[in-house]
Amino acid sequence: MKPQLVTFLIKCPDQKGIIATLTNFFFKEGFNIISSQQYTNSIDRTFFMRIRLTSDVSVHLSKSELEQRFSVLSETYQISWQVDYGRKKQNVAIMVSHTSHNLYDLLHRYKEGKLNCVVKMVVGNHLKLKPVAEMFGVPFYHKPIGDKTKEQQEKEVTELFDAEGIDLVVMARYMQILSKEFVHHFKNRIINIHHSFLPAFQGANPYKRAYERGVKLIGATAHYATEDLDEGPIIEQGVERVSHESSPTSLKNIGADIETLVLAKAVNCHLNNQIIIDGNKAIVFPEAGE
Amino acid sequence: MKPQLVTFLIKCPDQKGIIATLTNFFFKEGFNIISSQQYTNSIDRTFFMRIRLTSDVSVHLSKSELEQRFSVLSETYQISWQVDYGRKKQNVAIMVSHTSHNLYDLLHRYKEGKLNCVVKMVVGNHLKLKPVAEMFGVPFYHKPIGDKTKEQQEKEVTELFDAEGIDLVVMARYMQILSKEFVHHFKNRIINIHHSFLPAFQGANPYKRAYERGVKLIGATAHYATEDLDEGPIIEQGVERVSHESSPTSLKNIGADIETLVLAKAVNCHLNNQIIIDGNKAIVFPEAGE
Amino acid sequence: MKPQLVTFLIKCPDQKGIIATLTNFFFKEGFNIISSQQYTNSIDRTFFMRIRLTSDVSVHLSKSELEQRFSVLSETYQISWQVDYGRKKQNVAIMVSHTSHNLYDLLHRYKEGKLNCVVKMVVGNHLKLKPVAEMFGVPFYHKPIGDKTKEQQEKEVTELFDAEGIDLVVMARYMQILSKEFVHHFKNRIINIHHSFLPAFQGANPYKRAYERGVKLIGATAHYATEDLDEGPIIEQGVERVSHESSPTSLKNIGADIETLVLAKAVNCHLNNQIIIDGNKAIVFPEAGE
Amino acid sequence: MKPQLVTFLIKCPDQKGIIATLTNFFFKEGFNIISSQQYTNSIDRTFFMRIRLTSDVSVHLSKSELEQRFSVLSETYQISWQVDYGRKKQNVAIMVSHTSHNLYDLLHRYKEGKLNCVVKMVVGNHLKLKPVAEMFGVPFYHKPIGDKTKEQQEKEVTELFDAEGIDLVVMARYMQILSKEFVHHFKNRIINIHHSFLPAFQGANPYKRAYERGVKLIGATAHYATEDLDEGPIIEQGVERVSHESSPTSLKNIGADIETLVLAKAVNCHLNNQIIIDGNKAIVFPEAGE
Repeated sequence: MKPQLVTFLIKCPDQKGIIATLTNFFFKEGFNIISSQQYTNSIDRTFFMRIRLTSDVSVHLSKSELEQRFSVLSETYQISWQVDYGRKKQNVAIMVSHTSHNLYDLLHRYKEGKLNCVVKMVVGNHLKLKPVAEMFGVPFYHKPIGDKTKEQQEKEVTELFDAEGIDLVVMARYMQILSKEFVHHFKNRIINIHHSFLPAFQGANPYKRAYERGVKLIGATAHYATEDLDEGPIIEQGVERVSHESSPTSLKNIGADIETLVLAKAVNCHLNNQIIIDGNKAIVFPEAGE
Repeated sequence: MKPQLVTFLIKCPDQKGIIATLTNFFFKEGFNIISSQQYTNSIDRTFFMRIRLTSDVSVHLSKSELEQRFSVLSETYQISWQVDYGRKKQNVAIMVSHTSHNLYDLLHRYKEGKLNCVVKMVVGNHLKLKPVAEMFGVPFYHKPIGDKTKEQQEKEVTELFDAEGIDLVVMARYMQILSKEFVHHFKNRIINIHHSFLPAFQGANPYKRAYERGVKLIGATAHYATEDLDEGPIIEQGVERVSHESSPTSLKNIGADIETLVLAKAVNCHLNNQIIIDGNKAIVFPEAGE
Repeated sequence: MKPQLVTFLIKCPDQKGIIATLTNFFFKEGFNIISSQQYTNSIDRTFFMRIRLTSDVSVHLSKSELEQRFSVLSETYQISWQVDYGRKKQNVAIMVSHTSHNLYDLLHRYKEGKLNCVVKMVVGNHLKLKPVAEMFGVPFYHKPIGDKTKEQQEKEVTELFDAEGIDLVVMARYMQILSKEFVHHFKNRIINIHHSFLPAFQGANPYKRAYERGVKLIGATAHYATEDLDEGPIIEQGVERVSHESSPTSLKNIGADIETLVLAKAVNCHLNNQIIIDGNKAIVFPEAGE
Repeated sequence: MKPQLVTFLIKCPDQKGIIATLTNFFFKEGFNIISSQQYTNSIDRTFFMRIRLTSDVSVHLSKSELEQRFSVLSETYQISWQVDYGRKKQNVAIMVSHTSHNLYDLLHRYKEGKLNCVVKMVVGNHLKLKPVAEMFGVPFYHKPIGDKTKEQQEKEVTELFDAEGIDLVVMARYMQILSKEFVHHFKNRIINIHHSFLPAFQGANPYKRAYERGVKLIGATAHYATEDLDEGPIIEQGVERVSHESSPTSLKNIGADIETLVLAKAVNCHLNNQIIIDGNKAIVFPEAGE
């Protein structure tokens, strides 16, 4: 293997000596450990690790050899794992409807090299945001849901994503509920932004409901999409102070800034392999000071 | 009237010239306006005002004369109002069960002169926090809910509060649901702290549920108690960042600090006459820079 | 006057009856008061007011008549004031060097109708951000500072701004110190974003110095530019939590998001006439719930 | 060794295989790793580790045997380290002057079992807070600084602390500058709370200066005391939003709540062995989800 940054995400039952065993494995194969982050859920005794490695001249393993050897280990310790070699950027598709702030933000970060991915396309069920995608030179696909059934539209979108090798789908205020099939097809690879501080104001019109309830803080939540609307693993949340002076419109504007930051952070964590999903929760390792 | 700080809280339909009319009234009666804060709900066109006045030698009105004159005005403009002459501190009763952090905090603020009130008593349905009340020299009343019905206990508490002239009841993690009658008797005069960011995790065990949901922020909410549990007007909310590393115990500890600050702020706003209740919402005017 | 939103910003010595006098004036001239916000500095007894009015058919005053009448009042009460009739959007010039995040953010808000202004131009002392301005259809002027003296460049920029009727200059990470003359020419009309929580880390390389100092929070500050670098009236500040894991690069990235939000909020407050400058301080009235 | 929680804090030059080596060592000696946290400063290539272990029946080492064996390792790898066996709580002395909020807060946390230490005494250079210490049953020592020189007072305090085996000194708004000798005697064992967001408003009267500067956020900083006033390693910082309405008194009150939380968090991190000092910085590991 040529010098590169390799990231392993690891999950297994906690067991005596597991950190020693894992770090030894990588050490003996000749890797430098750049950072190692662990978390043990002390309630169900599950162990999680994110380990970042560089290989140097002493590493003569091919990728398949490395994975084969690690597989032996993983069977012994009941490890479920994934590895990223940092060689190929993830392909991202952004889905939108009418609302533009998240799209602008993600595209500008992408353009400035701050998102470690390739944004392959923007898909809208409306045409409104086509000019925004085009401003940034990103292809826009119009996939309306009209007389054509939603089922058909999702089928087309799925085919498009598969054809383009999409690794991550970002729902940047895409105002459609996804089918069970679609969510399953891209399991743990769809990030949604919900415009409330979940589990408060699940469902539609959260800002209107926040106004009516007279809350003093509003928020936004980025989470993986699952079958149950707004119930998936939470990646990131943010809030901002509001007051009785905040009209519904004002809540929407304040909220837009929260949504923007929260979604960008969540997408960034996913692209940097900082997340291990554990049932309905997302273990999000902080950025290691590399 | 002798020199003093008078606060009017005013609510009426919005109408042309209302600010001029009101400020003129106080000006002509010889008051100095120390601060004036207004809010107009632009949806239902309701006008709210908090106005703070000092009287000087030129004010020869008695309290009843002032109130009589203002009543004339209030009929013309359909004003509902209340006035506080700053002469008498409000009498406060704190209700507790087992949890001590809010009690310690409120009593220490009281002792240090930071709460503009007289804490007349602490009432507990358990004996556990008696020593805390006693440390601060505040009478403790044990009002258990046992074989004796809750109805009977509430009756005793109500009588005690009425006998002592309690103006404000603070539920400092008092883990009992109040009856309709009790809430009605102290309408808009009971402040509760709920240990979640309402409307998320309404009801019991919010930290456990927050842990299970894997949220990335937890919070607390101070609100006026109403018949519907955790549905009353929200006065103040706070949140703090947590992570997957936060165990249920750790969430509880982090939460305790949020609860402490949020309840103290809410009580302070109430005692400083900063709040006008409007249906299910609390208009909370910020502290004016007096 | 045709129906419109008129905003007066008022500053004068505090005096008995001042609110009544002012609100009466507008009431008698036939205006509706949409919102009225006051602040009295209780130390030096200065009174500040932001009052928003709509005129209806009953208002027969021309702008000059209104201003003439108000001038009479203002002499009596030593009022310094400014008025905005909401008829003409302010013309804004954005000055940049190499850093793009503030520019993208401001232009996207502008494009989406969220900034109440006309962005007439972007001026860069480098060419790097020309494509960004062009993406959004905003003219870019390249005004390098090279063998040509800075004095000459500032002269050209001043002439350009004057020719285009620029009302507000936004320094969106423009990495040049402005001359006394330039600052004076656009007095109280230049907003700068400093990439630290002032007065901490005044001057150059704040993120590097924050890293070296090991701070646990970093921030950004939007302020009016004055002769003394980073000493002008502060409009808005924001912070974000960091840790020992945050490398200098990571601090820069976290900081970029703070700078973005803080500058946008400050510009918005200025454009909405929410600010009265008082010596070295900015009185920033919150958005009124209109 | 009997079952117990052992914490090692480790610092050494980064080197290939260091995590494997260290975790192997503890594994082979029979320990369970409860949590392991690492940080590598990628600029100066220093490695830091906080590792928490439990021993079970298979561990037959005495403390001195363990330390002897670890010393062999530490020489090979140039490790500086410290170990805590969790057997003995740290002895804490709190130093105060007139201000009470931090003292109340620390004593109440201590009393409630939320601070993992024994508060042996409160030392005041004034008598004012004696009743507070006594309320909580903690001995109070009055060590005034009067005609008697400060040198003499510090000598007495040092002797008292040494006699009582004080491990940690907490300056809870102790308004005296400590001598070089005193700081050196308790090196890395004095925590101070500074009532500003350092490095802003270093030195005296920070709230007054914050008011004069018109900042929009105020803060507090807990740090280890060093010879240079307010220059020591920062452990924790907090901020809160303020406005032009905030008078100097109001800033002080808002600040008091920030100081309270920030100091408590910092003391807690120290007592839980979460901190490794590195030059002028504090590496503060987050609470591990044990």
